[in-house]
Amino acid sequence: MSSANSKRLRIGVIGAGRIGRVHAEALRFRVPEADVRAISDVRLDAATDASQTFGIPKACEDYHELLNDREIDAVIICSPTDTHARIIGEAAKAGKHIFTEKPIDLELSKIDAALAAVASAGVKFQVGFNRRFDPNFKALADQVRAGKIGKPHLVRITSRDPSPPPVSYIQVSGGLFLDMAIHDFDMARYVGGEEVEEVYATGNCLVDPAIGKAGDIDTAVIVLKYRSGAICTIDNSRQAVYGYDQRLEVFGSQGCLLASNNAPTRTELWTAKSLEAPKPLHFFLERYMDSYVAEMREFVRCVQTGAEPSCTGDDGRKAVVLGLAAGRSLKEGRPVKISEMGGKA
Amino acid sequence: MSSANSKRLRIGVIGAGRIGRVHAEALRFRVPEADVRAISDVRLDAATDASQTFGIPKACEDYHELLNDREIDAVIICSPTDTHARIIGEAAKAGKHIFTEKPIDLELSKIDAALAAVASAGVKFQVGFNRRFDPNFKALADQVRAGKIGKPHLVRITSRDPSPPPVSYIQVSGGLFLDMAIHDFDMARYVGGEEVEEVYATGNCLVDPAIGKAGDIDTAVIVLKYRSGAICTIDNSRQAVYGYDQRLEVFGSQGCLLASNNAPTRTELWTAKSLEAPKPLHFFLERYMDSYVAEMREFVRCVQTGAEPSCTGDDGRKAVVLGLAAGRSLKEGRPVKISEMGGKA
Amino acid sequence: MSSANSKRLRIGVIGAGRIGRVHAEALRFRVPEADVRAISDVRLDAATDASQTFGIPKACEDYHELLNDREIDAVIICSPTDTHARIIGEAAKAGKHIFTEKPIDLELSKIDAALAAVASAGVKFQVGFNRRFDPNFKALADQVRAGKIGKPHLVRITSRDPSPPPVSYIQVSGGLFLDMAIHDFDMARYVGGEEVEEVYATGNCLVDPAIGKAGDIDTAVIVLKYRSGAICTIDNSRQAVYGYDQRLEVFGSQGCLLASNNAPTRTELWTAKSLEAPKPLHFFLERYMDSYVAEMREFVRCVQTGAEPSCTGDDGRKAVVLGLAAGRSLKEGRPVKISEMGGKA
Amino acid sequence: MSSANSKRLRIGVIGAGRIGRVHAEALRFRVPEADVRAISDVRLDAATDASQTFGIPKACEDYHELLNDREIDAVIICSPTDTHARIIGEAAKAGKHIFTEKPIDLELSKIDAALAAVASAGVKFQVGFNRRFDPNFKALADQVRAGKIGKPHLVRITSRDPSPPPVSYIQVSGGLFLDMAIHDFDMARYVGGEEVEEVYATGNCLVDPAIGKAGDIDTAVIVLKYRSGAICTIDNSRQAVYGYDQRLEVFGSQGCLLASNNAPTRTELWTAKSLEAPKPLHFFLERYMDSYVAEMREFVRCVQTGAEPSCTGDDGRKAVVLGLAAGRSLKEGRPVKISEMGGKA
Repeated sequence: MSSANSKRLRIGVIGAGRIGRVHAEALRFRVPEADVRAISDVRLDAATDASQTFGIPKACEDYHELLNDREIDAVIICSPTDTHARIIGEAAKAGKHIFTEKPIDLELSKIDAALAAVASAGVKFQVGFNRRFDPNFKALADQVRAGKIGKPHLVRITSRDPSPPPVSYIQVSGGLFLDMAIHDFDMARYVGGEEVEEVYATGNCLVDPAIGKAGDIDTAVIVLKYRSGAICTIDNSRQAVYGYDQRLEVFGSQGCLLASNNAPTRTELWTAKSLEAPKPLHFFLERYMDSYVAEMREFVRCVQTGAEPSCTGDDGRKAVVLGLAAGRSLKEGRPVKISEMGGKA
Repeated sequence: MSSANSKRLRIGVIGAGRIGRVHAEALRFRVPEADVRAISDVRLDAATDASQTFGIPKACEDYHELLNDREIDAVIICSPTDTHARIIGEAAKAGKHIFTEKPIDLELSKIDAALAAVASAGVKFQVGFNRRFDPNFKALADQVRAGKIGKPHLVRITSRDPSPPPVSYIQVSGGLFLDMAIHDFDMARYVGGEEVEEVYATGNCLVDPAIGKAGDIDTAVIVLKYRSGAICTIDNSRQAVYGYDQRLEVFGSQGCLLASNNAPTRTELWTAKSLEAPKPLHFFLERYMDSYVAEMREFVRCVQTGAEPSCTGDDGRKAVVLGLAAGRSLKEGRPVKISEMGGKA
Repeated sequence: MSSANSKRLRIGVIGAGRIGRVHAEALRFRVPEADVRAISDVRLDAATDASQTFGIPKACEDYHELLNDREIDAVIICSPTDTHARIIGEAAKAGKHIFTEKPIDLELSKIDAALAAVASAGVKFQVGFNRRFDPNFKALADQVRAGKIGKPHLVRITSRDPSPPPVSYIQVSGGLFLDMAIHDFDMARYVGGEEVEEVYATGNCLVDPAIGKAGDIDTAVIVLKYRSGAICTIDNSRQAVYGYDQRLEVFGSQGCLLASNNAPTRTELWTAKSLEAPKPLHFFLERYMDSYVAEMREFVRCVQTGAEPSCTGDDGRKAVVLGLAAGRSLKEGRPVKISEMGGKA
Repeated sequence: MSSANSKRLRIGVIGAGRIGRVHAEALRFRVPEADVRAISDVRLDAATDASQTFGIPKACEDYHELLNDREIDAVIICSPTDTHARIIGEAAKAGKHIFTEKPIDLELSKIDAALAAVASAGVKFQVGFNRRFDPNFKALADQVRAGKIGKPHLVRITSRDPSPPPVSYIQVSGGLFLDMAIHDFDMARYVGGEEVEEVYATGNCLVDPAIGKAGDIDTAVIVLKYRSGAICTIDNSRQAVYGYDQRLEVFGSQGCLLASNNAPTRTELWTAKSLEAPKPLHFFLERYMDSYVAEMREFVRCVQTGAEPSCTGDDGRKAVVLGLAAGRSLKEGRPVKISEMGGKA
């Protein structure tokens, strides 16, 4: 870490749930250039607990206090998805720089309105596709861009959760394509380096019938066609019993890049029974902690230097478009062109 | 190897091209229970060369000599694809047990006629899906069947050739789906342990425009839906510059099985520049030699003991049906149900 | 990280060189239970820079100011090796709990005096063998203790630096056995779980003749015999061009445990030329950062709870005894018994 | 395999025990250039069984029949160690080319007499250090010679058997250094590319007290110093419960080469319990079969072309010298110089 800055970026965190705490802690202890001034939550006790745990001076219930605070330069939006678009609009009008968790919203019209507010306010805006900042995936994307494997032909994303979320969450999350695969849609664009033109999705409920009753699937294969003719496959499961399975492969005209899972140690145990290696890191916060810190550092750096964040509002919107297209493909049993999805995409 | 048998199976090999020589050599030097009596080829010099190289007593131009030879119990059909169905029919009538290379034929009607002849003659019949006998893939399939990963949910087949065949071959081979992916269609059924109901195929010509001019693709993704709702993805390329890429993964309710590539050695070189490992075995005969020997041993054993070969005529037919369905899916840009493909499939 | 404690341990850091800054930063940003009050260095500007960088309230030249400060509970001794024993004695008399970098001293008599002062003052004392806290090595040691491989028979430590230190450092460091292998001597005791009885060391100057001129070797093999008859081999080099090579293997009656190197990512690049993986982490601060944080957390926790630190003064002494025995073995060309080394060892 | 040669080398195999059968089968089925004419064994039924199993025309009790047979060009000596030197002498006088299993003998004087007989007869002579022909180790040695890692500094040989031989064998074998480590002594010379000057050996009986009662050890560490100052460590155990552990590492000024174990497949099983890989090949005949075939092919080729075998009588002698030096080092508890061992070594 570099020197603590006398002109640190003054930050307010909106939402003190799990991901809000992650960002607050990262900003507080791992990003010396940040000065976390306040945290808000509709549950005041949650905000207070976070403020005490991480040594944040102020806790409050109403995020408007943060928006109205002249001593706050930027906000980190970690509230529930259905509040993102509204808060983005308000924060932009208040002249705050904005980092928001994904997805921006589940409706394109609301996304468009939020992004228009950002554009008109001229504030910095970054969307929380943290996996772009994961060392494994970033190394792959950097090497693709550096031409190490020539032109990409096939991209393969393995994205399997260790266990399903509660059905109550699935009922409001937008389902597998929008709460889980949305990261993979962004990854497909990020690592592929070009836009997707067509989506084919298929899937089933093989893990837990309760998920099916809630109208969702728990096992999916998604095929994306890029403009160049390259093809991406994503495979998702809500339950990989061996842990969080997050792998990536990009095959191109001159080679192949592969990222395997992270594990807690690089050790092996050889016995008369078998040769054993540690299972992948199980919890997404362990697996992706470095990426959360890195995205916060990029956001702070961009605001301080005037640079554009690398993960933009348009990136946030496009991932939602792909998720909606996947949903339509599954429903209609056919490939769906992105041009069918309307709007600006 | 076990003891050389006094009642060895007397075998004639039809076709002395590349794969004919592979089987002849395997039978001659690695299958003590086999007695290779003769080899035929429309190019007599090819047959003669093989007979001298491998110490086979007789070489001839016309395979009918083998069919008419009472001292021959079984034939190995290694002639061009468009002759398979006819020779199968004749060999069955001559009472010879039959091992044939894949595909049986590119037309279902001819396949059906050949299989009917086999059934009526009551001879043993085995199709050359050698990859079922590969130690890696067999170990995976055995563990799937033993329930090690519970119920399969996702199957992933990576099948990429080191370099494209001549365009002249592609023009008569039936194309990528029937000359290359056909092995993967069989693998999907073999390792998945159930039948496929629907095929979606997409692909492009990204490696060599000459392949596109010949009406084929060189890069493909195929999605197969099994009856249970499980899903298989196959990805194919005609050109993996790092070598022959033959991997397999089966993900299920209780775990995941993975097979990686074989390499000539298990060595590494660590230098100031990088950590290097050997590339995968490049040539399919190196990669799959053990599987060719194993399938010959199974064929000989089945004929000698009266057991049914594990890779049947129906298996040979179904792989072709999947290949034809993939072709239709690509052409029509939609998933194709196997029930649409007509016939008995 | 857990909640910031209202009764945080008040700490002074003595020495603001490289390792002093590492501990200061870890305590400041990664150990919420610690409150770093002051840092001293004979070079005041170094202390001042660290205090500003990490937000430490006080910087001073003379460490006695820390020892005399009633608001300081514990000190972290990061000064040059030849000052350790004296400062330990003074700090103990001042009633401060003590964490000291290794080695305690290069002379056993000074070590004994320092440890006697600690014992008489009754303060907590921990020696900085950080590798015990490395996740890979700790996982191995824990599994050895849990009986996963039965009784250890053979221990193998690979410990190779990426590049030699300056010759000026080697001239005062005690040489390879005391500045580099000392970590490995401690690891041999830690992971082997028993005491060493005999040392055989051999080595040469193969990397840089200047090291030989300075009277040291740069390549060594050390064989340690444990009381039980188990054997440990250590191999050291001052220069592994591929990076920092830190591996460990423990072979026992029921199996084998292995720890391989850490690398920045778990990625591979496959090309027509080779299959490449990332090199090991090159810099010891990257490789072992987690272990530095973990040892600080243990020290703070032990002082706060009254628990005994797991890496004691006796551990610090014994590693020096082994280093001295290795030096004698090399000089005399024969195995040296620990009982020959005199003193209490 | 290449064409069967009309001038195949006519071979007699002396000894139809385990290794005799291995060579007979390899020559018969995997070396087309060889023509195995006869096999002898003091137990006639063993010779007869092998002759029937592998289709060898003649079986006899007395190896002199082979030596007297003008139709035999070369012999493969697979009889007990204490007969090697005598048979070598007789075979040389009979003008037969000679391949002999290791060790040539346990006494240097007998070795010298045998080698003198070979030299005076001018026949080809090859010693069965088959591991030089193992693809992993050969690849390492070739890369060392090609300068891929610069000058070797440290060699590390892991050589652990899956389970101890019968104590009755140990009583006549010369013990661990001469029946087991002898392969490693040869490997140290082969892969190091230079001669050894000094040996230090230590070890204990940790696996089975019965081995200790028989006067041997079952766990050993051996340190070899090369002329250049480079150092080799060998670690041996009679019992690695996870299988046959045969690894090799050569560290040099420009890098490091590593060979890991061979396993039956390249597969993994990931479950809720662990990530499992297959254990190493357990049986030495599985692990090293390719090397046995390769050494037979080299022997046949050398006789046919007049080339010198790469593994000479001198190599056979030097490995015994190192084994004897290790025994003396263990007994006397000190490093032993090769120059102390007398004779020509």
